[in-house]
Amino acid sequence: MSFDLDAYLAARRRAVDEALERHLPPVTAMPPVVHDAMRYSVFAGGKRLRPILVIASAEAVGGRMVDVMPTACCFELIHTYSLIHDDLPAMDDDDFRRGRPTSHKAFGEAIAILAGDALLTQALGLVALNAGLGKGPLEGFPRVLAEITEAAGTPGMIGGQVVDLQSEGKTVSAETLEYIHTHKTGALIRAAVRVGAILGGAGERELVDLTRYGERIGLAFQIVDDVLDLEGSLATLGKTPGSDRRKQKTTYLGVYGRDRSWARAHELVDEARTALAALGSGAEPLRALAEFVVSRRA
Amino acid sequence: MSFDLDAYLAARRRAVDEALERHLPPVTAMPPVVHDAMRYSVFAGGKRLRPILVIASAEAVGGRMVDVMPTACCFELIHTYSLIHDDLPAMDDDDFRRGRPTSHKAFGEAIAILAGDALLTQALGLVALNAGLGKGPLEGFPRVLAEITEAAGTPGMIGGQVVDLQSEGKTVSAETLEYIHTHKTGALIRAAVRVGAILGGAGERELVDLTRYGERIGLAFQIVDDVLDLEGSLATLGKTPGSDRRKQKTTYLGVYGRDRSWARAHELVDEARTALAALGSGAEPLRALAEFVVSRRA
Repeated sequence: MSFDLDAYLAARRRAVDEALERHLPPVTAMPPVVHDAMRYSVFAGGKRLRPILVIASAEAVGGRMVDVMPTACCFELIHTYSLIHDDLPAMDDDDFRRGRPTSHKAFGEAIAILAGDALLTQALGLVALNAGLGKGPLEGFPRVLAEITEAAGTPGMIGGQVVDLQSEGKTVSAETLEYIHTHKTGALIRAAVRVGAILGGAGERELVDLTRYGERIGLAFQIVDDVLDLEGSLATLGKTPGSDRRKQKTTYLGVYGRDRSWARAHELVDEARTALAALGSGAEPLRALAEFVVSRRA
Repeated sequence: MSFDLDAYLAARRRAVDEALERHLPPVTAMPPVVHDAMRYSVFAGGKRLRPILVIASAEAVGGRMVDVMPTACCFELIHTYSLIHDDLPAMDDDDFRRGRPTSHKAFGEAIAILAGDALLTQALGLVALNAGLGKGPLEGFPRVLAEITEAAGTPGMIGGQVVDLQSEGKTVSAETLEYIHTHKTGALIRAAVRVGAILGGAGERELVDLTRYGERIGLAFQIVDDVLDLEGSLATLGKTPGSDRRKQKTTYLGVYGRDRSWARAHELVDEARTALAALGSGAEPLRALAEFVVSRRA
């Protein structure tokens, strides 16, 4: 019997959503508007890919979901903050996200900026909370915190967003395109897999394999994102298709064309699965997730 | 012989500046513009009050500056990020800060937002770096990280900024004014004192005393800020005086008037010094810093 990814994803998503509900301040806490804005974006119906990768990676090396859940939620909050700030008028200037008005459209720019700041702050507080669970060696937490702040900072996600903004409307080299993709989206996906592995108690050999896996699916994810942006519909994407082209964004599709982009995405997924060869049946969810990255439609 | 605060502050400022130089990515690192923007605001000539409080508090309970320096820098980076974001057009819309164009005036809004995000991210990474020094019990670091994220988040600084923005142009109650001041500025100052104490190995009794100290000087600091905003000059403040009034900001001065505001500030400083009664000569810098908070002119 083959692994039932849909059931796995549904169960993990539900667990992540319940944990996010617990780990975000209630709307009633002072000042309500910023908590309302934080929850508006977090509960807008994301795939929860990053937290599920943390969990699946921990489970692949024998860890337990409950012992990594706060850190899994940390990744979702960082992802959400980055979307809120990227959507701002001074950045990508997007009015819709996941089929709803973006944060600054719903709450105004000031609250959107502060809600993003608050999600990033709260996210890293969850690493402290995870350490407080008393599961896993305490030495692991400074390492985990360092991995996350590096992946989310200028050596990672923020660096990618800066170069992406600077490249709008320009012809960029294949190297710059690679930099943008591996940093803007790739760094956080890679870190989710690595951090799950570290907290789950991975050996160094397993960590090397899982890092390779994370790098491959991170890049594949972004290539598919570029294709979906052009070929998807408003209904499936929840945002206006073709926005990359209108904004003269640098995309994999623009540089390599559709066929080579799809071929590269599938190649990366194969490489990701190959990287897991030494891991046993506990890595089955990760193998299925690699396929999901290229088969998804939104 | 009385304690020479000027010499103490100059030496600590120099040490903090050297550490900040080490702990920020070089301008040459990719992508240069965001590192340039981060350094532009960090090295704009701040007083380094928060990192010096971390150091002085640790020293007051027998800790060493070198063992808390990354966390001291963390507070300065959080403070700097908050200034960059508060100055944005969607927020307080300030063109000058510390005598120079604000970040968005110098680098544009997108880079200013990202530089702020990057400083917050880097700041919390420094807590991991501090844990990695191997000084002090590792158990202290999750606690320190939780203290910082709470003080910087919606239960603290961000909460204060939200209510401050919502109160512009309105008549607010004394309770709302107190909320704004204790949260927007007070929470981070209080946390700087507490975190220095925790890392320095304070006992619970010392921590209670130092917390009281931190709360009192935090509020005194903000009251003096309000007065200086009205009475200072562009030369000493580095920003246009009277900006609070023009923006119809809620200030202590506006609610209580000049005389009662000064009296309250001095009363708070007395209370702060009284809180340190059980601490020995090692707390002399903290006592002098309390005086400095009301005697400063910028």
